[in-house]
Amino acid sequence: MAVNLFAPNPDDIFPVAGVELGFARAQIKSWDRRDVMLMRLCPGSHVAGVFTQNAFAAAPVQLCRQHLKAGADIRALIINAGNANCGTGKQGLQAAQATCKAVGLALQCAPEQVLAFSTGVILEHLPVEKIIAAVPQAVASLSEGNWCEAAAAIMTTDTVAKAVSQRVQIDGTTITVTGIAKGVGMLQPNMATMLAYMATDARIEQPLLNKLIKEVADASFNRVTVDGDTSTNDSFILIATGKSGHAQLRSENDQGFQALKAALIAVAQELAIKIARDGEGATKLITIEVEEAASVEEAHRVGKFIAHSPLVKTAFFASDPNLGRLIMAIGNALPQLDTSRVNLWLGDVRVIEGGQRAASYEEEQGARVMKPAEITVRLALGRGAARTTVWTCDYSYDYVKINAEYRT
Amino acid sequence: MAVNLFAPNPDDIFPVAGVELGFARAQIKSWDRRDVMLMRLCPGSHVAGVFTQNAFAAAPVQLCRQHLKAGADIRALIINAGNANCGTGKQGLQAAQATCKAVGLALQCAPEQVLAFSTGVILEHLPVEKIIAAVPQAVASLSEGNWCEAAAAIMTTDTVAKAVSQRVQIDGTTITVTGIAKGVGMLQPNMATMLAYMATDARIEQPLLNKLIKEVADASFNRVTVDGDTSTNDSFILIATGKSGHAQLRSENDQGFQALKAALIAVAQELAIKIARDGEGATKLITIEVEEAASVEEAHRVGKFIAHSPLVKTAFFASDPNLGRLIMAIGNALPQLDTSRVNLWLGDVRVIEGGQRAASYEEEQGARVMKPAEITVRLALGRGAARTTVWTCDYSYDYVKINAEYRT
Repeated sequence: MAVNLFAPNPDDIFPVAGVELGFARAQIKSWDRRDVMLMRLCPGSHVAGVFTQNAFAAAPVQLCRQHLKAGADIRALIINAGNANCGTGKQGLQAAQATCKAVGLALQCAPEQVLAFSTGVILEHLPVEKIIAAVPQAVASLSEGNWCEAAAAIMTTDTVAKAVSQRVQIDGTTITVTGIAKGVGMLQPNMATMLAYMATDARIEQPLLNKLIKEVADASFNRVTVDGDTSTNDSFILIATGKSGHAQLRSENDQGFQALKAALIAVAQELAIKIARDGEGATKLITIEVEEAASVEEAHRVGKFIAHSPLVKTAFFASDPNLGRLIMAIGNALPQLDTSRVNLWLGDVRVIEGGQRAASYEEEQGARVMKPAEITVRLALGRGAARTTVWTCDYSYDYVKINAEYRT
Repeated sequence: MAVNLFAPNPDDIFPVAGVELGFARAQIKSWDRRDVMLMRLCPGSHVAGVFTQNAFAAAPVQLCRQHLKAGADIRALIINAGNANCGTGKQGLQAAQATCKAVGLALQCAPEQVLAFSTGVILEHLPVEKIIAAVPQAVASLSEGNWCEAAAAIMTTDTVAKAVSQRVQIDGTTITVTGIAKGVGMLQPNMATMLAYMATDARIEQPLLNKLIKEVADASFNRVTVDGDTSTNDSFILIATGKSGHAQLRSENDQGFQALKAALIAVAQELAIKIARDGEGATKLITIEVEEAASVEEAHRVGKFIAHSPLVKTAFFASDPNLGRLIMAIGNALPQLDTSRVNLWLGDVRVIEGGQRAASYEEEQGARVMKPAEITVRLALGRGAARTTVWTCDYSYDYVKINAEYRT
C-alpha cells in the first residue's frame, strides 16, 4: 500500500567510485530472499554514523559506536535483515563481533574495520553461523553497480526498495551521492532512521564529515515518523570515498561544500520521504509544514505532535477534514500558545483563521483537499520566524493488521 | 467492544445528600437520546475542579476556571454532549455564558454560580438555543436518585455508562462518595479525564478540597490513557455538599480524612479503569505496573511510553507476546537506563531477566498469558523504590474504524 512509491530504476541510481556492494541468501528467517548485504569501501574512505538513542540499543549498534569511536579505517559494512540482535546481552555482542571477524578474514582487514548492522525481530539470538556461512557468497557478488539489489536485501516489512542518487559539481568535478534506506515501522528516528546508507566519492575530511552527517540527519531522517516509536537499531551511515578529483574539503567555507551538503540533504530527504510513503499500511503521505514558530525545536515539536496523533492519522485515512483533531494536537504540543494567532491550511484551503474555523471555509473544500494520496498541512503559529517540515503517513486498518500479525 | 464492562446497577450507586440530577433531550445532534445533564447542589457545597492543559481549552473550560477562581458559591453544573464548544472564539464564550445564565434563571442563582461543560465535536458552534430550551425539562426531572441516568446523558462514543459509588465511615458517620465519568477517545487526561463528576456529602473545607482533588486526579484519571491525545475539554469536578454530620475536615490530620481520601481515590480509580475498558475499539484492558523506578515521575513516564506505543497496543490486540516492542518502549522512555537491571513479567510469567529474554521463558507461556481480556505487565527498572500503575487498552481494527468514521 505504499503511496506513489515505485522500485528505483537502476538507470537512475549511479555507482559511487570506491564502493562495491554484494548480497547473499543467509536464510535468517525461513524465507527465500536475499537477506544479507555487504559493502566494501576503498582505502582512504571516511565514514561517519549516527545511531538510535534507545537505551536498548542493539548489540551491532553498540559495536558500531566502538569501531567508529576508535577511529578505525572502516573498510566494510555488513547488514542482515530478519533479526535485530537486540536485547541479546553478551552473546549478542559476541555474535556481532564474530560477524565482523568473518568479514575481516574474507576481505583481509581487521574486525575493527568492519561495521555490522541488523534489523528484524528483537530479543531473539542472531543465527550468526548462517551469516558467516553467507559471507563468501556476498563477497563473490561485490560490484559497484549493485545499489538497487543492496536496497532490496535490507528490507523487512518494506514493500518497495528505496534508493536515491544525485550528481553535483564541485570545483568543476562531477561527484555522485547515492543512498539506500529501509523503514518502515517502529519509526520515529532519533538521530537517524532505521537503516540508511549513503555514499559519495567527494573528498572530505573526517571532522567535517562528522559534523555534516548530523546536519543531514536533522534535515531528513529526523523529520519523518511513522508511529512515533524509535527503534533499537536505527543507524544512518555516511561514507565519503574521496575517489573524485576535486580539492579536499576541510571547512564549510571551501568551494563546493554547500553544493555537496545540498545534494546530501536532497538525497537523504528523498529517502526519508520514501520511508513515510512506505509506512506500514500507509494510504496517504502527509507533509506537515510548521511556520512562524519561536524556534526550530518548537516547530519540530508541534509537527511531531500532529504527526503522532492517532486521531489525526485515522482522520487522514478516512479523508476526513477533522479540524478539531488538528487543533487538539497543536494545543497539546504548546499549552501556552496564544490560539487566536493560529492559522492552518489543508492543501490550498485556509481552514483555521485566528484559532477558529475560517469564515470562508466550507466542508466540501476540506473534503476535496483530503481526497488525494498526498496532502500538505500548513500551520502558522504566529510566534516567530522559525519553520520546519515533518513527513508522516496515515493509520489504516492495514497498520493494525501488519502489526498484529507481524510475528506470525 | 468494552472489556468486561457492564452498565451500573442502580442499586449499587448511592445518592449523595445535597446533589440532585436531571436530564433532557436537547437534540444537539440529530439523535434520539438524552444529551443534557443538570446537577443542582445544596447551599454550602464546596466545589473544586481540574482541567485540560491543552492551549485550545474549550470555551466552557475557560469559563469554569473563571467561576471557580472567583470563589463563587457554585450551585449548579450543566453538561451537554454532541458539541465541544471548542475553537469557537468569542461566540463560544458567549454561548457558555448564555447557558449559565439560563440555568441561573431557572434555579434562582447568579450565572457565576453555574459551571457549564461540553463534549463532542470540536470547531463547530454550540447550538446554545437548544440547550437553553431544554433547561426547564432538565429542572423538572431533578432528583437525588438519577446518577445512572446522568452518566448515560453525558456519553459520546462511550458504549457503557460509567458510575461508581462507595460508602465510608468518618467519625462514626457514614458518608457517601459517588462519581460518574465519560471517555473514551482523545484520551490521555492531563490533570483530569474528559469529563468526570464526583460528589460526597462529607464536610470538608475548600482549601483542603482543592488540594485533595489534585491527589485524587493524579492517582486515577491521570494514570489512564487510550490514545495519548489530550482533549480540549477534559474536566474533573469534585463536590463536597457537607450534608453529613461529622466534624468539618480542615487538615490532612483530621480524623476521617485518610478514610475519605481513600474512598475518593478508589471511586476515581474505578471510573478511570472503566474508561480504559471502554477505550475506542478496546478488546483488552492492560494494567502496567512500573516498580523500582528512581521517582514516581520516572515510573509514570515509562508506563505511559508503553501504554502509548502503537506497536505495543497492536501486539496486545493480536494476543502476541511481542517482547521486543515492550523493551523498545522502555528504552525510548529512559535513554540512560542500565538495561541489564530490567526485569519484566507478563501476568505471572517472567519474560525479561536482566534485560534479556528470561532463560526459563517459553513462547507458549507468553501466548497463554496474552490470551485473556485483562493483562498485567509488571516492570522492575532496578533504579529505586518508586512505583506507579498505568491503565490502557489495545488498538484494534475497530479503533481505526471508529475514528475514521467518527464524523460521518
